[in-house]
Order: sequence, then structure tokens, then C-alpha cells
Amino acid sequence: MADLKREFWDRIEDVRSGMLGIKGEGRLVPMSPKADDDAPGALWFITAKGTELARSVAAGPRDAQFVVADDGEGLYADLDGTLEHSTDREALDEAWSFVADAWFDGGKHDAAVCLLKFTPSKGEVSVTEGGGAKFLYEIAKAHLTDETPDMGEHGTVTFA
Amino acid sequence: MADLKREFWDRIEDVRSGMLGIKGEGRLVPMSPKADDDAPGALWFITAKGTELARSVAAGPRDAQFVVADDGEGLYADLDGTLEHSTDREALDEAWSFVADAWFDGGKHDAAVCLLKFTPSKGEVSVTEGGGAKFLYEIAKAHLTDETPDMGEHGTVTFA
Repeated sequence: MADLKREFWDRIEDVRSGMLGIKGEGRLVPMSPKADDDAPGALWFITAKGTELARSVAAGPRDAQFVVADDGEGLYADLDGTLEHSTDREALDEAWSFVADAWFDGGKHDAAVCLLKFTPSKGEVSVTEGGGAKFLYEIAKAHLTDETPDMGEHGTVTFA
Repeated sequence: MADLKREFWDRIEDVRSGMLGIKGEGRLVPMSPKADDDAPGALWFITAKGTELARSVAAGPRDAQFVVADDGEGLYADLDGTLEHSTDREALDEAWSFVADAWFDGGKHDAAVCLLKFTPSKGEVSVTEGGGAKFLYEIAKAHLTDETPDMGEHGTVTFA
């Protein structure tokens, strides 16, 4: 598992929630990321135009932070990057989900829909092998063999 | 669900991982919190003396941040607080777990064991009702009734 960057893009696809915020302003709030399988390099978020995050990037891109702690996927990350408003219709089609559909009366053509693009630049990524079952196996194995369990890898990843 | 602080202490008990770090220094790293049922007010973490976090608080308490994004428990939080080294044996007994046992050769009396105490002061807390199934129900109901789903509550919580 040498390539933590690839591991990140593989695993983030199935992560339902993370914490997103503007650097040095306010707090991290729960948001649901969507990754584009065909073009890794950005995470997409759907929100409404009135939200604090949407207003924060109305005037232009901002330095931002995205934090993931997902036991199911075995993915833990603290990422710096750039957050911006996007008008990319194709990305919106890709990111649109059942959840967003429930929030916006007019579907994805609702005027209140705001698509945000987060482009990670650098961060710390930790991965554990294979989620819950494997994790418990590693623990059990460590008890049998007196070895420290091989629970995963972590390191600094440069995304740019 | 008026009392977000109580909701936080109720739900954090079953959260396996969050991201912990010193304010303005380095990065958030994955750590497993333990809450004391009898004395809510602090989160406990077990680590080894050589880790960056342990070294950060060796000289005294530091301002710290703890971030949770747990879909299973429906708990999302970004907390400010104080992190410090603790020699509380009772708290260590309470916090000790099967996982920690696998990491330290000498069990909880291993000289490398470092108990950290995080005392939250203030933060943003979001809760969603009842986890996955309820969440999907709310979405489905919203589709039926043309209402925006009642997906939870969020707000600023003062812990002190």
C-alpha cells in the first residue's frame, strides 16, 4: 500500500460524510463528498446558496480544510485545499444524489442549489487495512504472535 | 432534542474514531475516544509516549481540537478544548481497551502507555436522528410529503 494518494481516491468514493470549513474562519461542518471516478483531483459538495459555506466562497476561492474519519472505509484524513463555487453542469450531474433531491424542491435545476469544488493540495492521510473485520483480525493476530498489529499506513500526501 | 450537549455525551460513547490535534500545530490524527459514563466532561485517549501528540503535551496542557464525523451514531462535531497528559489510574482502567492491549506489550502497566485527557470547552455539534435507517426514512418521507426532511439539529455548544 505504497500509494496513499491512490488509496485516498479509491476510498473517498464510499465515504458519506466529512467535515468541511474555511481555514481560520468559523467551524467545520458536516458535508457529503462526491468524488468523480473519471477525474480524481477534486471533491464535490452540494449545498444551498444561503449556507455559510456557500456565502464564504461567493466572492472567489478560499483556503479550506476537509477532515475525514471513516471507520467503515478505514480512511482518516486532514486535508488542506481550495474551496470554490462551481457552475460545472456535468459535475453537478455526477454529484447529484437522492439526498440532495430531497432538499431542493426543483431538483438539480433549483436556483438554490450551490455546487462546491474542493481541490486538495496537501494533507495527512491514514488508512487501515480492509475495515472492521480485518482490523479485528490484526488485533487478534497481534495477541497470538506478540507482534504489534499491522494496522495500516499514514503519511503526508501532496495532491497537486 | 433540545440539549445538544447531552446528545453529544450520549453518542460519543459509541464513536470509535475521531481526529485529534494541537491547535495551530501539525495535523489532526486519528484517535479513539473513550468517554466516562459516570463523569461526562472529558474524553480520554490512549497513545504511546513517543507519539507527536504525547510529546506536544509533555510540558503541560495545550489548546487542542477534536473532530468527529460518525454516520453510524449520527454525530458530527468540531470541538475546541484543552489536551493534557494524565496520570489518573482510574481513568486509565476505564479507558483501557482490547485495542490498546494489542499495542502495548506490558498491558496497561507498560511504561510506554500515555493517557491523554481532552476537556472540550466549546464547539459546533450536529446530530442526525437515529442513524442510517432513520435518515433514509426522513428522506423518503420528504419525497412523499414535499417537506424538507427533519434530518437533525446543530448548534454551538458550550461545555464548560
